[in-house]
Amino acid sequence: MADPRFHRRRGPFRLADVVAVAGVPVPADADPERLFLDVGSLDAADPGCVSYLDQAGYAAAAGATSAGAVLLRDGQQEVVPAGTVAIVVGHPVKIFARIARLFYPDEVPAGGVDPAAHVHAGATVAAGTRIDPGAVVGEGAEIGPDCHVGANATIGAGVRIGAGSRIGAGVNISHAIIGQRVVLMPGTQVGQTGFGFASDAAGHLRVPQLGRVLIDDDVEIGANCCVDRGAAGDTVIGRGTIIDNLVQIAHNVRIGRGCVIVSQAGVAGSTELDDFVVLGGQVGLSGHIKVGKAARVAAKSGVMRDVPAGTEVAGYPSVPIRQWHRQTVALGRLSTRKGE
Amino acid sequence: MADPRFHRRRGPFRLADVVAVAGVPVPADADPERLFLDVGSLDAADPGCVSYLDQAGYAAAAGATSAGAVLLRDGQQEVVPAGTVAIVVGHPVKIFARIARLFYPDEVPAGGVDPAAHVHAGATVAAGTRIDPGAVVGEGAEIGPDCHVGANATIGAGVRIGAGSRIGAGVNISHAIIGQRVVLMPGTQVGQTGFGFASDAAGHLRVPQLGRVLIDDDVEIGANCCVDRGAAGDTVIGRGTIIDNLVQIAHNVRIGRGCVIVSQAGVAGSTELDDFVVLGGQVGLSGHIKVGKAARVAAKSGVMRDVPAGTEVAGYPSVPIRQWHRQTVALGRLSTRKGE
Amino acid sequence: MADPRFHRRRGPFRLADVVAVAGVPVPADADPERLFLDVGSLDAADPGCVSYLDQAGYAAAAGATSAGAVLLRDGQQEVVPAGTVAIVVGHPVKIFARIARLFYPDEVPAGGVDPAAHVHAGATVAAGTRIDPGAVVGEGAEIGPDCHVGANATIGAGVRIGAGSRIGAGVNISHAIIGQRVVLMPGTQVGQTGFGFASDAAGHLRVPQLGRVLIDDDVEIGANCCVDRGAAGDTVIGRGTIIDNLVQIAHNVRIGRGCVIVSQAGVAGSTELDDFVVLGGQVGLSGHIKVGKAARVAAKSGVMRDVPAGTEVAGYPSVPIRQWHRQTVALGRLSTRKGE
Repeated sequence: MADPRFHRRRGPFRLADVVAVAGVPVPADADPERLFLDVGSLDAADPGCVSYLDQAGYAAAAGATSAGAVLLRDGQQEVVPAGTVAIVVGHPVKIFARIARLFYPDEVPAGGVDPAAHVHAGATVAAGTRIDPGAVVGEGAEIGPDCHVGANATIGAGVRIGAGSRIGAGVNISHAIIGQRVVLMPGTQVGQTGFGFASDAAGHLRVPQLGRVLIDDDVEIGANCCVDRGAAGDTVIGRGTIIDNLVQIAHNVRIGRGCVIVSQAGVAGSTELDDFVVLGGQVGLSGHIKVGKAARVAAKSGVMRDVPAGTEVAGYPSVPIRQWHRQTVALGRLSTRKGE
Repeated sequence: MADPRFHRRRGPFRLADVVAVAGVPVPADADPERLFLDVGSLDAADPGCVSYLDQAGYAAAAGATSAGAVLLRDGQQEVVPAGTVAIVVGHPVKIFARIARLFYPDEVPAGGVDPAAHVHAGATVAAGTRIDPGAVVGEGAEIGPDCHVGANATIGAGVRIGAGSRIGAGVNISHAIIGQRVVLMPGTQVGQTGFGFASDAAGHLRVPQLGRVLIDDDVEIGANCCVDRGAAGDTVIGRGTIIDNLVQIAHNVRIGRGCVIVSQAGVAGSTELDDFVVLGGQVGLSGHIKVGKAARVAAKSGVMRDVPAGTEVAGYPSVPIRQWHRQTVALGRLSTRKGE
Repeated sequence: MADPRFHRRRGPFRLADVVAVAGVPVPADADPERLFLDVGSLDAADPGCVSYLDQAGYAAAAGATSAGAVLLRDGQQEVVPAGTVAIVVGHPVKIFARIARLFYPDEVPAGGVDPAAHVHAGATVAAGTRIDPGAVVGEGAEIGPDCHVGANATIGAGVRIGAGSRIGAGVNISHAIIGQRVVLMPGTQVGQTGFGFASDAAGHLRVPQLGRVLIDDDVEIGANCCVDRGAAGDTVIGRGTIIDNLVQIAHNVRIGRGCVIVSQAGVAGSTELDDFVVLGGQVGLSGHIKVGKAARVAAKSGVMRDVPAGTEVAGYPSVPIRQWHRQTVALGRLSTRKGE
């Protein structure tokens, strides 16, 4: 059970309510009025809990579970013990996410500007939006309805933020247009000057960075990330892209829709990711390259050339992932054969 | 000498006071009343300073030092010049740390909540704890005695912090239970939502992250780190573990006691480190793996499989470190032999 | 054109004004009174814009540009269309940076301490310096003229900041002496305790960190970086060095003048960089090594030994870059030849 000091639970909900979220009928022989109090993992769930079986590797855990109901795929119904309701769905973890949100809806604070926030007279804050203490909203900024701006965040002059977005504590945003339902976690920096200099023997002269950051709807960005504004033109993050913590997005990077960027990855200037690209943790991408649609880059790889759509690369310099596996094997043999 | 604008020095202390900290007697022929004013490195110390010789490689520096006293190991007494007191101890740098703290005790501000801090009426702040301007303490939070919460930090609703902990400026904490004498340096983020999504063609749906972060006593975490809360269950950092700057700890990671994690390392979700594990800088660990007791991972390595207790691995994918050295040698020869 | 919500443009300027910034005469046949309204890239510029051609690879774009004037190198004059003024300069991007600054000068807020800032009575803030809401300036701190301290930044007790420096929102500085015209972007942490411990079976004992951070004039540091103070002695960043986002600089690191450190690089304790060193993105440097003047380290490399002046290294462990290229080729062949 989630700690009630941190997670407020709703419910109980009837089995009929639960399967309605899943979009499936009440299983035959199950009581639609049976009450559920919570969600939980297979090993921690009790008879009042809804759980899920997503990967075949957890079948043993499912067989031993005390959960009252388990979301699972067709064909897995026999895995769970008698007395546990087997709810057949197409995508168990996704349906579990929805049911978990039924019990634990996102906590949205009541709207209103805290007296200790600093909102410029020339800024616009829509109804239902909460601005926490110490937050600063600059001149001409426009924040849509039902947003939450965390404590000590700063929203720079002219910045737009769409409805339902959540800006974490200590986030600083400037030179940016941000869509709806965007999540920026604490400590993330958006819109600062990109790393563009004209260098010669006299030193490094900053080239004015005259662009913006455009973040589309439903983007989520983790904690302590950096998204620089464009030099000329914009840095763009496409709809529904999700980004983990401590990620670097340089100036004029263009990221498509639905991409996944894992922690501590970095994307250098002007590089473009098409839709549904996946970058593993600690990946580095050179500047001015293109990564094709749905391409995947394995964790820790360094990519210096374009990556074709639909391919997967690994290593540094990165190669097709099967080649990287062969390199790894060859290198292992080479070092063994020498008998050193 | 440390800059007095930043470091307040106590003293002078008599040699008898100094050796008492070391837990050893006053050396024969040395004057227990001799006064010491400061600590310093071998090359910078003057006759009023206590210094230390930790590694044999610095014997030349010890021979040329002007320090009034030098902490060193048995057998090294003859290295230092005549007139310099040789204090024999088992672990010179550790004893030096204690003596340095005698001269420069940790600075703890006087207790009290700054009028410009924002402490919820339903929060508890114990006596002797200092809350700096702009800090926000949420409903139901409990902060023990003799803590320091830096400027513009936020302590979320329900968070517990044990006695004597120091929370840096701009730190944001939520969904966390924090022990005693814990240090979190500026800009570190604790308890934010982990990177857990159910993905399909329709997009990435956030799975509610219903766990917590548990940080045990005497943990120190550097600046601008990220520690995500658990998805179900907790993210745990064991007693006395020390973590450098810019480190990523994902949801449901479990870290044992006394571990050392160097800067820019990242640990992916649900991975477990047993006690006394050492991760070098920029190391990456995959999710759902186990690293055994006192195992060591060399800097920049990428670990995708379990690491047995007591072993050392390196490279990407990581291999036993001796094998990695052989790989390096073999690769060097291979490229040389080709004569390209 | 830059978005006027974020970038305030000056002008128009006459061609004579523009070429005066470049330090060259008005080109023959060009009208010195011709007006220019903006700057822009070759593909986005219109006849009212000044653009630039820096690399031969963009000659096609220059041939198709609508820009009213193009900065270019001698010999490139024929590339641009008739009607476009070709302005011959020695370093087009550098001159472009200056001209861009003519149209878009750095925005410096009017001086003054915001009523919601917290400046200690024993601190000194010079005329013309702006302190934003929520910023905290400690006892004995001295901030020179014409600086900007962003919202919710903290300037610790005794810290010095020279004239014309810009401290971003959420930056926290302690134990530091900072020069003139220094830029620290949002979320960067300066002066916190370095990662120095005396470890044994009883645990990790923090060694007091009694040094400072010294940042010389004209240094620029990106967002969410960490610069630890020295253990004994100082961490030093030399004049005119530029550092990207999410970079780690450990205690007692000494960085020379005019260095370039790209995003997510990390430099371990006591390592020294001579002048004009370049570190690529995600580079890691071991502690206690020396990198010679104007040496270059390729992105993602791991350096464990000294790097001679003027050389370029790559890989992990790093080797001369030509050797690294040979290794890459050899490894590729090896894995192919095996036919696995």
